[in-house]
Amino acid sequence: MLKTYRHPADFALECGAVLHGIDIAYHTFGTYRPEDDNAVWVCHALTANSDVADWWPGTVVEGGFLDPVKHYTVCANIIGSCYGSTGPTSINPATGTPYYDSFPDLTIRDMARALTILADHLGLEHIGTLVGSSVGGFQALEWAAEEPKRFGRLVLIATDAKASPWCIAVDETQRMAILADPTYGEPRADAAKAGLEAARAIGLLTYRGPEGYNRTQQTPAADGTEPVREHRACSYQRYQGLKLSRRFNAYSYVKILDAFDTHDVGRGRGGLREALGRLTMPATVVGISTDIVFTPAEMRTLAAMLPNATYHEIESAFGHDGFLVEHDQLNSIIQSSK
Amino acid sequence: MLKTYRHPADFALECGAVLHGIDIAYHTFGTYRPEDDNAVWVCHALTANSDVADWWPGTVVEGGFLDPVKHYTVCANIIGSCYGSTGPTSINPATGTPYYDSFPDLTIRDMARALTILADHLGLEHIGTLVGSSVGGFQALEWAAEEPKRFGRLVLIATDAKASPWCIAVDETQRMAILADPTYGEPRADAAKAGLEAARAIGLLTYRGPEGYNRTQQTPAADGTEPVREHRACSYQRYQGLKLSRRFNAYSYVKILDAFDTHDVGRGRGGLREALGRLTMPATVVGISTDIVFTPAEMRTLAAMLPNATYHEIESAFGHDGFLVEHDQLNSIIQSSK
Repeated sequence: MLKTYRHPADFALECGAVLHGIDIAYHTFGTYRPEDDNAVWVCHALTANSDVADWWPGTVVEGGFLDPVKHYTVCANIIGSCYGSTGPTSINPATGTPYYDSFPDLTIRDMARALTILADHLGLEHIGTLVGSSVGGFQALEWAAEEPKRFGRLVLIATDAKASPWCIAVDETQRMAILADPTYGEPRADAAKAGLEAARAIGLLTYRGPEGYNRTQQTPAADGTEPVREHRACSYQRYQGLKLSRRFNAYSYVKILDAFDTHDVGRGRGGLREALGRLTMPATVVGISTDIVFTPAEMRTLAAMLPNATYHEIESAFGHDGFLVEHDQLNSIIQSSK
Repeated sequence: MLKTYRHPADFALECGAVLHGIDIAYHTFGTYRPEDDNAVWVCHALTANSDVADWWPGTVVEGGFLDPVKHYTVCANIIGSCYGSTGPTSINPATGTPYYDSFPDLTIRDMARALTILADHLGLEHIGTLVGSSVGGFQALEWAAEEPKRFGRLVLIATDAKASPWCIAVDETQRMAILADPTYGEPRADAAKAGLEAARAIGLLTYRGPEGYNRTQQTPAADGTEPVREHRACSYQRYQGLKLSRRFNAYSYVKILDAFDTHDVGRGRGGLREALGRLTMPATVVGISTDIVFTPAEMRTLAAMLPNATYHEIESAFGHDGFLVEHDQLNSIIQSSK
């Protein structure tokens, strides 16, 4: 069930803007038992939300690494998004209307600081395991760097400590697609719908990669001599774009992409090596064999910079999305490498 | 120097439309010596053109595989494009105005049939080597399947005999970006400029891939604590988009993407294996180690379906664009595997 913590105090963002109170919407699964140190915090990715059981199949189930009988799992909607935490579609108290594109710039560090507020509110002084995949891993690493003593262990899946030029180029391309739609900027939540759909389709290309598409999106063979002009891969892209535009908005999407690009755990902390060198808790780093967003090579480099990390690799044809698909491998890796 | 052959006869397209005469603009390099069988035909990729010496550095030079002292190289601008051959910006004789988005649908086979017309016009009954990279390879394979006896040898670089679901998904995503720009459809050559720029940026992501960006587009390290919001990878994407929109147009771009997706050498020829099985001339198939458009695995599969092919792999960090960058490796492979 979605709960919301209304934090009454000012929340200062890195850009200098101040939000006068923020909402943090979140889910919990299972029962907190401090004596078992059984809290697990999940940081969600780009357009996901706090309902982990919904978007991460095979995890919040008996035998899963978020088994609700054993663990107390918390996941909060990131600020800037549109699932109940403060973001561009929230009402700006200064104007009485939604922020839309006037919402202030965010960083991953801002997002992590909002998580601190919720953890304090929930009385979770110690969190046994902090889990993050993709942009969720960005938050996990930022949060761990902010408060290393709060966490017993890190699980970092298909992510990195700094946004790579490649990922930034993908994000910029998505912004270009959104801005090609001149309705971006109009004061309505469905502005730049077509641009957002194209942006999502761009993201998907990188999430699934060549192997993912070639395995699942083959057009059935046509026997004739006529050229085939409508392909399964085409309708898939359009459908996935549409699915996102029905549940998300371009303003949140751009804010989160912008925050993504600022990600650098080493910033203001003496650089990446120094910042990561202070994260001495056990860390399980998981790459995916066909991931082209965060490549296995990149994941191995991340693991090597963490003092107490083990690296594991999921075999999958589904690229970056493999972390959502290969939950059996993930459950096994996370539970056996404790 | 750009020459143009104005073919006076009707040219029937696979879609059923008939162009009443077509222009084929082309370049030649070197001198034709039939007694040496020294003709080399180069088929160009997506937005390239007939001036091979311009876009393919290190090839039309002394010692290159297109050395103009030894070889007579021909390259024609593909129909549908905008470098002098008939395409969407040509005048529609029926209306006296440019076709723009009313230009008929093309296939790669149509493009290859236009090449036949030019080869006949030039009196090139036999072409020693037919070279194609990327979508140029699509044309080369189609043309070879249409007229196998015309060619002594094939050189197929980073290409395939059929468009993969992955490539089709990339193309559809580019079309989505173009269509997100509502000026697409307006009767002017610079319609959908912003959409075309986003589409080009999408293409580039796949041409360069993770390694290409991470090697060349690192943002210089910032020492401060301020989040970095403007990255080299961002300006690179925007600049590359702009560069294309200055020299190309959205209508040609979409027509060529559409043709790309129809590509299937096996269509109407009993399937891929049978069609490729008839191409018994020597073939040099070249993959690029980091290419995510046409992966090395895909290139090996193509080579295996050709009866008389050898497979070679270029080591490069530049992905699909490696064929433009690694001309030394390419010259060596092509000249030693004759």
